[in-house]
Amino acid sequence: MCGSVASPVPIPDLAGRKEIFDYYLGKIKVGNDVDVNVLSRGTTGFTGADIKNVTNQAALRAAADQVDSVSMKHLEAARDKVLMGPEKKSRIPDEEANLVTAYHEGGHALVAHYTKDSHPLHKVTIIPRGPSLGHTAYIPAKEQYHMTRSQMLATMDSLMGGRAAEELIFGTDFITSGASSDLKQATSIATHMVKDLGMSDRVGLRTFEDNSGQLISTGDSLGQSTKESIDHEIKKLLQDSYERAKSILKAHAKEHKALAESLMKYETLDADDIKAILDGRPVAKDL
Amino acid sequence: MCGSVASPVPIPDLAGRKEIFDYYLGKIKVGNDVDVNVLSRGTTGFTGADIKNVTNQAALRAAADQVDSVSMKHLEAARDKVLMGPEKKSRIPDEEANLVTAYHEGGHALVAHYTKDSHPLHKVTIIPRGPSLGHTAYIPAKEQYHMTRSQMLATMDSLMGGRAAEELIFGTDFITSGASSDLKQATSIATHMVKDLGMSDRVGLRTFEDNSGQLISTGDSLGQSTKESIDHEIKKLLQDSYERAKSILKAHAKEHKALAESLMKYETLDADDIKAILDGRPVAKDL
Amino acid sequence: MCGSVASPVPIPDLAGRKEIFDYYLGKIKVGNDVDVNVLSRGTTGFTGADIKNVTNQAALRAAADQVDSVSMKHLEAARDKVLMGPEKKSRIPDEEANLVTAYHEGGHALVAHYTKDSHPLHKVTIIPRGPSLGHTAYIPAKEQYHMTRSQMLATMDSLMGGRAAEELIFGTDFITSGASSDLKQATSIATHMVKDLGMSDRVGLRTFEDNSGQLISTGDSLGQSTKESIDHEIKKLLQDSYERAKSILKAHAKEHKALAESLMKYETLDADDIKAILDGRPVAKDL
Amino acid sequence: MCGSVASPVPIPDLAGRKEIFDYYLGKIKVGNDVDVNVLSRGTTGFTGADIKNVTNQAALRAAADQVDSVSMKHLEAARDKVLMGPEKKSRIPDEEANLVTAYHEGGHALVAHYTKDSHPLHKVTIIPRGPSLGHTAYIPAKEQYHMTRSQMLATMDSLMGGRAAEELIFGTDFITSGASSDLKQATSIATHMVKDLGMSDRVGLRTFEDNSGQLISTGDSLGQSTKESIDHEIKKLLQDSYERAKSILKAHAKEHKALAESLMKYETLDADDIKAILDGRPVAKDL
Amino acid sequence: MCGSVASPVPIPDLAGRKEIFDYYLGKIKVGNDVDVNVLSRGTTGFTGADIKNVTNQAALRAAADQVDSVSMKHLEAARDKVLMGPEKKSRIPDEEANLVTAYHEGGHALVAHYTKDSHPLHKVTIIPRGPSLGHTAYIPAKEQYHMTRSQMLATMDSLMGGRAAEELIFGTDFITSGASSDLKQATSIATHMVKDLGMSDRVGLRTFEDNSGQLISTGDSLGQSTKESIDHEIKKLLQDSYERAKSILKAHAKEHKALAESLMKYETLDADDIKAILDGRPVAKDL
Amino acid sequence: MCGSVASPVPIPDLAGRKEIFDYYLGKIKVGNDVDVNVLSRGTTGFTGADIKNVTNQAALRAAADQVDSVSMKHLEAARDKVLMGPEKKSRIPDEEANLVTAYHEGGHALVAHYTKDSHPLHKVTIIPRGPSLGHTAYIPAKEQYHMTRSQMLATMDSLMGGRAAEELIFGTDFITSGASSDLKQATSIATHMVKDLGMSDRVGLRTFEDNSGQLISTGDSLGQSTKESIDHEIKKLLQDSYERAKSILKAHAKEHKALAESLMKYETLDADDIKAILDGRPVAKDL
Repeated sequence: MCGSVASPVPIPDLAGRKEIFDYYLGKIKVGNDVDVNVLSRGTTGFTGADIKNVTNQAALRAAADQVDSVSMKHLEAARDKVLMGPEKKSRIPDEEANLVTAYHEGGHALVAHYTKDSHPLHKVTIIPRGPSLGHTAYIPAKEQYHMTRSQMLATMDSLMGGRAAEELIFGTDFITSGASSDLKQATSIATHMVKDLGMSDRVGLRTFEDNSGQLISTGDSLGQSTKESIDHEIKKLLQDSYERAKSILKAHAKEHKALAESLMKYETLDADDIKAILDGRPVAKDL
Repeated sequence: MCGSVASPVPIPDLAGRKEIFDYYLGKIKVGNDVDVNVLSRGTTGFTGADIKNVTNQAALRAAADQVDSVSMKHLEAARDKVLMGPEKKSRIPDEEANLVTAYHEGGHALVAHYTKDSHPLHKVTIIPRGPSLGHTAYIPAKEQYHMTRSQMLATMDSLMGGRAAEELIFGTDFITSGASSDLKQATSIATHMVKDLGMSDRVGLRTFEDNSGQLISTGDSLGQSTKESIDHEIKKLLQDSYERAKSILKAHAKEHKALAESLMKYETLDADDIKAILDGRPVAKDL
Repeated sequence: MCGSVASPVPIPDLAGRKEIFDYYLGKIKVGNDVDVNVLSRGTTGFTGADIKNVTNQAALRAAADQVDSVSMKHLEAARDKVLMGPEKKSRIPDEEANLVTAYHEGGHALVAHYTKDSHPLHKVTIIPRGPSLGHTAYIPAKEQYHMTRSQMLATMDSLMGGRAAEELIFGTDFITSGASSDLKQATSIATHMVKDLGMSDRVGLRTFEDNSGQLISTGDSLGQSTKESIDHEIKKLLQDSYERAKSILKAHAKEHKALAESLMKYETLDADDIKAILDGRPVAKDL
Repeated sequence: MCGSVASPVPIPDLAGRKEIFDYYLGKIKVGNDVDVNVLSRGTTGFTGADIKNVTNQAALRAAADQVDSVSMKHLEAARDKVLMGPEKKSRIPDEEANLVTAYHEGGHALVAHYTKDSHPLHKVTIIPRGPSLGHTAYIPAKEQYHMTRSQMLATMDSLMGGRAAEELIFGTDFITSGASSDLKQATSIATHMVKDLGMSDRVGLRTFEDNSGQLISTGDSLGQSTKESIDHEIKKLLQDSYERAKSILKAHAKEHKALAESLMKYETLDADDIKAILDGRPVAKDL
Repeated sequence: MCGSVASPVPIPDLAGRKEIFDYYLGKIKVGNDVDVNVLSRGTTGFTGADIKNVTNQAALRAAADQVDSVSMKHLEAARDKVLMGPEKKSRIPDEEANLVTAYHEGGHALVAHYTKDSHPLHKVTIIPRGPSLGHTAYIPAKEQYHMTRSQMLATMDSLMGGRAAEELIFGTDFITSGASSDLKQATSIATHMVKDLGMSDRVGLRTFEDNSGQLISTGDSLGQSTKESIDHEIKKLLQDSYERAKSILKAHAKEHKALAESLMKYETLDADDIKAILDGRPVAKDL
Repeated sequence: MCGSVASPVPIPDLAGRKEIFDYYLGKIKVGNDVDVNVLSRGTTGFTGADIKNVTNQAALRAAADQVDSVSMKHLEAARDKVLMGPEKKSRIPDEEANLVTAYHEGGHALVAHYTKDSHPLHKVTIIPRGPSLGHTAYIPAKEQYHMTRSQMLATMDSLMGGRAAEELIFGTDFITSGASSDLKQATSIATHMVKDLGMSDRVGLRTFEDNSGQLISTGDSLGQSTKESIDHEIKKLLQDSYERAKSILKAHAKEHKALAESLMKYETLDADDIKAILDGRPVAKDL
């Protein structure tokens, strides 16, 4: 789950890649064994330029083999070359990793959908971008000045949705390290609520960090019971949030499954797709 | 709530913006659909120069459209351009954010008004300036040398008035992050009272920070019970202050509402306006 | 209360300012409304050069007004100009602040006078110098090598006299931030006694800071009970000192009042004046 | 135990060194006393180039001695020269150290083999490389995105297998310092699980380190009970892992012995060899 | 009490100053009122060059007064000039400060004399040197390699002798800040015994500081009970040392008085003088 | 006790110095009073070059005295000159210091000899080198890869042997500061065992320091009970080691005495000498 920063180069989804392969392969002579579906599935994360590059290089290989049509063998070798080339791509996740990501991202989306004061969903995807395997983007309903306590909790819950999904679907032994950045963000929100915003009755209406960044001294001069209170409240905010996320996922297990399966199928879902799936309607892409 | 630092460029309030729009639109041909009220409401925080700029750009757009009068469409596009332009303005708060700000600032003002030894009020506004959505300015009654304990408590109470207002009017779930700088200032005063001014009997007549900024060592060498006492006293000063602020706002809920509504209407209130509202009299601007 | 560092330029007291005004106004034509008493009271902290400047500027203003005599109006405008001018003076305290200062400084002086082993008094003043509103100066009886425990306690008691005076005369709510530097000095003496001079039986004959300034490690390696003992002894030394100061001021409330009133009247008292007041005799300046 | 980073220069095992010696000695005249087996055993860690160098230098020494055939004496002197030469090799371990290493590495391999979700084995060796006396390499089954909890535990168990082997085979008094880097890695995994991945129920779904590396303040502001919980959970994860490793080694003591003995014999075992040994079949090298 | 570092310029004692005055005044005409005893007493700490300077300047002043002989007035003015001159001398202590110093230094010497394994005395003086009012010098019996526990305790006891003397002779209220450097040195020895030399059974045979000066981490990683033990043992070593010093001074009060009085009379005593006084014999200087 | 680093210049022992004196004095005319035994005993730590220098300078002095033979007086003056010369030698220890060193080093050697898994002895000496008064050198039996727990304990015991010897022979009051570097090394081994090697059951199989040297944060984030456990285990390892060392020295007191006396006689003992002494046989040097 991350912010909806626009990627500098558009990354096509499965359908997009098929279209692009069809376009470029249409320009050259291809063998009977060439399967655009297989090629498209095997090039997640490729840009249009990458696909063009794959078909060009495959043609060169066919020429080098002194055959007059490009076969699957040439295309796959070319794809591997591009993948491993000097501008090394992110690794292509396998089906199993994609499934974990689909449930994880679906978890974020589902919790956001059923949580009051969460930002509305914009897009969910399992296409990797940078170090992250997938992400869920939100449209803030309107330009935001200050966040309310309710909105902070909703953000935490949605962040917890990914990890909760892993635990519910795959079991405790198979939760992954994939939620670490979600947990870090949620911890940061909870810490802000307790230490800067006076949103814990037990800790009270006091702030604990000054502008000068003299964090060291502040920490040192706090008594044990204050530190214990701060720890307790941060932990409680996070634990409660996780429980809320889990109970939403449990109550909507069927929709969660539908979301994850659609993500496996389409890789990316927009707000309307998600709505359709949650309503049990077919998504527009199928129509 | 912040100090009454004079803004380098005067920012007109609602009435002011209307006048300025009337002036500049009077110089060009405008369509029937142009509504100065709507334009003024939609340009909070604009200076006179900004408004002049909006009308000029609207005229250019009309010319580009090869029509002979400026319509609302041109004006709004021009306003958006100015707003998003290279010299990016602060974002314009929506009605909902304004309402929260109005009650928040009204809370500061009301608590200050009913607290002995508070500085008299000078001005309250919901026009954003810098990162702050609104502010409440005070006139110190006379040049101040040293503050008395009573004045420090009054300042803390007034600072707490904003947050207390949010909790009372919108409920715990909807308190915002807007009070964080108020809380930081109040914490700073309470810390000063306990650690530099010997104003806590439990902690005693001792100071805890030396000039050389060797905060680290001082903190380290303090025993647990001293740290606990310091924490306890700071927390108590802040908690008591918040309770006093809340009880004033509860006792004067009607005036609070009147203040907030007037702020929604006029955006800025001066000392006389506030006095009129609290007395149940019409404000001068309405006369 | 601060050391008796000689001010580079002599600052005249009330009587001195009257004389200087009389001298310079004697050289120009002045209107009937000019009241030297009022002028002198309103120029606390002005040097002789400042007063000369005021009269010169007033004369220029009268000339600009094309009248042939300087009236009170010209003099007050000139005084304000000098006060606010490029070489900004310290702010002139009002009567109320002066009263607090008079009792505060009187407190220092009275406690010093009645405490064995205190340095004898040299001068007490409520004329501000730098950031301090007044001060009390002492003549060390002779050049001092080492201070005795008794002299350290006497110094602490006298430092506490200012704050004790505020509490006794104006009440707990009206104690000011004016004692913060006194408290810091007293804390520094108490800390020195406990941590460097082995003057606490409970802490024992041990020092806690080495020459190399490795304060951090020393602090870190101390056990809780040692830290608690150090805190306890510093607090006790300060608390006992404050109680002694308060009980002297209570026992000599009449003399305290007399001292404060004389300070309001003459602004500065020397050792003989103080002695006269404490003996119930008229001060030399009245003779 | 370390990652399967390919060594820049291939290091031959015992059989390899024999072949290389046979090759180079076949080109020169050698005496009857020359025993290739002894030479090969005495040159663990030598590359092919090193062995070529040894035979060349031995030939020069024979020439210097004015004898016409190279004797064992010349070869051993040449070997020592190469060993101690400007490009100092790692020291050659003795039989006893090799035995400890064989059981240690065998322990890693055996635990990995019997632990669900461990990476499959690739190679085990007792040939020293850099500061490490031996290592065990794994082939990750497929490119890994996120690790599951189960995989992290399997990695910890396999890391613990080396130390557990030493304790079981040689006794507590003879455990060596050789496991320190294994322990450090295992501690790092356990710490990551508890402090970054929320994988301890007692500590909860909270992270404890932020990106800015402000570790100091975070540490300082934690309460005692949180610190105790973190310590407890890290210790428990590690202790449980060690027990699992030990119980696998106990249950498969015979295979452990077979693995260690094969390592003593062949120095390096690949995945097929290991499988053969664990199945009680002869290894391919013996066929 | 400080080491016996040779002073770059010899500082004469009372008898020495008389001789020097006699010599230089013998060269000029002096009035009847000139009293060499008074001049010598009033120039403690002056070097021979200073005294020559005093007489020369006095002669110039007499010439300026157009009188033909140097009177006491000229000499005292000259002495003051030299004392306050550009090369500011240390301040001359008064009789009262000298008496405190005499008992303080006498205390060091007496405790050293009656303590087994103390270094033998070399010299005791009340002539100030640098910031110290007096000092006691020892001759190490022979070049020392390592100190024994017994020698360390003897050094501590002798250091404590100065402070113990102040308490016994002048009372608790009149102990001075003069012992602070003695206490610091004694604390340093006790700390060394406990933390580096394993000389406390309770703390045990462990060191606590490494060469790299990583004092911070060492301190941080110690548990409370270890820190308490270290504190307890350092305090106990110092407290016991002080008690031993006090009980020696009590048992030899008469000799202490005799030493102090001789120091007042001669300012400096060497080993033979001290021995004579402690034996009740006249000191050589009186013979 | 220190490692067996070869000294750049060989330092002869007593017998060696006699030979060298005999050689150089044989070249010049010497008086009847010259006693080579006395000269040799008085030049511990001199190299051959130093002794040559002494005889040359003595000859020059004799020439300067215009006598035709070198007497003891000339030789001793020359020795002192060399000793104190521009290239200042280490101080020559006296008999008493030598005796302490002999028992101290003998303690190291004896404990090493009777401790299983200790490195065999190589040499023991009381000739000072650098800041250390004596040392004991070991030959590691073979090149060492990893140390076993048993070897670490043996090293600690041997390190403790020096201090234990001082306590047993001279008594608690006369233990010296000479063991501080032994204690530091032993503490370092014990700390390594507990914090890096998992060799304490109570602390567990966890490491506490990472490569990046972020010691500060690690220390800070540890809970009290973990810190107490670490302290307890380090202290226990050291205490047990000291007890073992003491009980070996007690059980072999006679051999300890014999070793120390031989060290006083020969200054340096090699492995064979030590073996002879422990077997009650005469050492080779006496044969």
